[in-house]
Amino acid sequence: MKNIAILGSTGSIGQQTLDIVSTFPDQFRVVGLAGGEKTDLLARQIEEFQPWLAYSPFTLALPSKTKLCSMEEIASHPEVDILVVATTGKIGLLPTLAAIKAGKRIALANKEILVMAGQIIMAEARKHGAKIIPIDSEHSAIWQCLRGERAGISKLILTASGGPFHHYSPSQLAEITIQEALQHPTWKMGRKVTIDSATLMNKGLEVIEAHWLFNIPFEKIAIIVHPQSIIHSLVEFVDGSLKAQLSFPDMRIPIQYALAYPKRLSNYKLPRIDLTGVKSLTFEPLNYAKFPCFRLALEAGKRAGTYPAVLSAADEIAVKLFLDCQIRFSDIPTIIGETVSLHRVVANPTLDDILDADHWARETALRLAKRGSLC
Amino acid sequence: MKNIAILGSTGSIGQQTLDIVSTFPDQFRVVGLAGGEKTDLLARQIEEFQPWLAYSPFTLALPSKTKLCSMEEIASHPEVDILVVATTGKIGLLPTLAAIKAGKRIALANKEILVMAGQIIMAEARKHGAKIIPIDSEHSAIWQCLRGERAGISKLILTASGGPFHHYSPSQLAEITIQEALQHPTWKMGRKVTIDSATLMNKGLEVIEAHWLFNIPFEKIAIIVHPQSIIHSLVEFVDGSLKAQLSFPDMRIPIQYALAYPKRLSNYKLPRIDLTGVKSLTFEPLNYAKFPCFRLALEAGKRAGTYPAVLSAADEIAVKLFLDCQIRFSDIPTIIGETVSLHRVVANPTLDDILDADHWARETALRLAKRGSLC
Repeated sequence: MKNIAILGSTGSIGQQTLDIVSTFPDQFRVVGLAGGEKTDLLARQIEEFQPWLAYSPFTLALPSKTKLCSMEEIASHPEVDILVVATTGKIGLLPTLAAIKAGKRIALANKEILVMAGQIIMAEARKHGAKIIPIDSEHSAIWQCLRGERAGISKLILTASGGPFHHYSPSQLAEITIQEALQHPTWKMGRKVTIDSATLMNKGLEVIEAHWLFNIPFEKIAIIVHPQSIIHSLVEFVDGSLKAQLSFPDMRIPIQYALAYPKRLSNYKLPRIDLTGVKSLTFEPLNYAKFPCFRLALEAGKRAGTYPAVLSAADEIAVKLFLDCQIRFSDIPTIIGETVSLHRVVANPTLDDILDADHWARETALRLAKRGSLC
Repeated sequence: MKNIAILGSTGSIGQQTLDIVSTFPDQFRVVGLAGGEKTDLLARQIEEFQPWLAYSPFTLALPSKTKLCSMEEIASHPEVDILVVATTGKIGLLPTLAAIKAGKRIALANKEILVMAGQIIMAEARKHGAKIIPIDSEHSAIWQCLRGERAGISKLILTASGGPFHHYSPSQLAEITIQEALQHPTWKMGRKVTIDSATLMNKGLEVIEAHWLFNIPFEKIAIIVHPQSIIHSLVEFVDGSLKAQLSFPDMRIPIQYALAYPKRLSNYKLPRIDLTGVKSLTFEPLNYAKFPCFRLALEAGKRAGTYPAVLSAADEIAVKLFLDCQIRFSDIPTIIGETVSLHRVVANPTLDDILDADHWARETALRLAKRGSLC
């Protein structure tokens, strides 16, 4: 029986994690829940799962056995075996670090944490023996393919659905509405990651995440567009052999894997792939020119220091402004690009440097958006 | 430095094994070669690689340092680290058993050995700590996918190119010539395995091979047709996740893997797959009705005892008769089916029972072919 705490339990990944936990009441027990704005949902989750620990930024009536505490307290509580980090953006960073310092297993869905502070996170994880198992489908795929062999890798190949706009013309790209951008062709996800998928920023963040998680140089990470989202990623080895992980695009599969690792649990609620039904898996090169966010992310990743944190913060602001109907879809890369270009980088940053850069980038991105015609 | 001996060095797999060995002179040394009918080629190989041990069924002039001996002696020689069994049909059985009893690593390309005597081979390998690493591309793929995890398997999915005749009509199937049957769409292979691929007997033998090699019941082994031969096989796990191994269809890749395991060696002579160049991987169900040899193999595998040995022996005879222009393509399953139906099975056979059944099946298949109109 493993004790699970979930940061971001009311989001898409959080809810699907609770679905998995409910399926295996003899394997997993929820001991901590932290939610965000959906307080009604959080209250219902607490009622159902009766965790010992809960966090909400808002006032919440709690059952007698549930204690209100901070996300850091939940993350590092001695009774927690696995911390599921299902938050979005920077909010999960400090609680994740607290869990790592307590040597917990981290099931990580919050890629911005590794983008912002990959070097610090991975160094602390090594130091404290904390295992970070990715939930992102691409990284879970690579993690699975590397099981039993970590040497002889020549390339990580992340697949990308291409998002809803891969075949749009430049003029079509300029006129995208929020509703269009929120229609992902293969995955049901939260709003931030869905917009990031439409701009391809998400794929750029994933490259940075893979770089840190698997300790692989950027030159050895490639992207291919695979519209069906069935091959979730591949590893190419030095002998010309590749391994791939495939499944129906359902996030419960990598979530369950991260919780149950190294076991695989039989779960007939999870969909099966029948390749003869799928008939065809297709691949095309990514149209880099059409998606400036991808290029911005890759550049920030390679330039390192505080650049990735600035990129990630500016993206959070830009996506929020787009979802609030304050800017256009095509303004997203403009704001991020300008923010990054104004940044004075700190090489080998401390956590404080990163948090400062994050703060500066949020203010700068907002200022840039409000300046002139954008907002 | 590993000492390699090759049984069947003049065949397709044998020659490709020598190509790999030549690429890594600091990793592998050829210490034994056994060839068949191509004595000129064997003589040239011996001249080039200067093995200590050689076998030929024919007279051969040998260099002074090379000693003529039996295949069993080569297979079990104390200086041999890895025995590559690249023979075809039953001829490799006794030498392979000798190598297993000597605790050697076996790189196995000769699937008929496991079809005939899988239970005995695997039991002896366990008893003597001999590792059997498959060279067959499908089994190498599964072996690679199972690296690091052997539990939680729900299905092995062997891919099949479908051979040259998957879309032929019954009337077209009746009129196939040797030249057509020897044109495999994706793999360059020896003549016996190429004809077995055209009849789909090869895929049936592979199912039996997988059953023994991975200790998986027949109900958990599935076939899908994948005409591009790039995904070499897949493993489906109980959590709905699949792992696949992919590569350009080049047998040197699984050969090198079997020799170098657990390492992967960087070899830029081996072709790389670019999935954006391939564009599409397609899948279709196998048309079982059109390929009676596949059904015969599966039935023999499930009925077990001496049936698989009889199937394999009758197939060897029938394929030879077809290649000698003695019977038609559509006579192959007829002869095999009738031979199997006449057999009086021995359950839990000893090695002698298997060799007796093999002998009986060869005579019976020949007799059936000569009877009536076939020859």
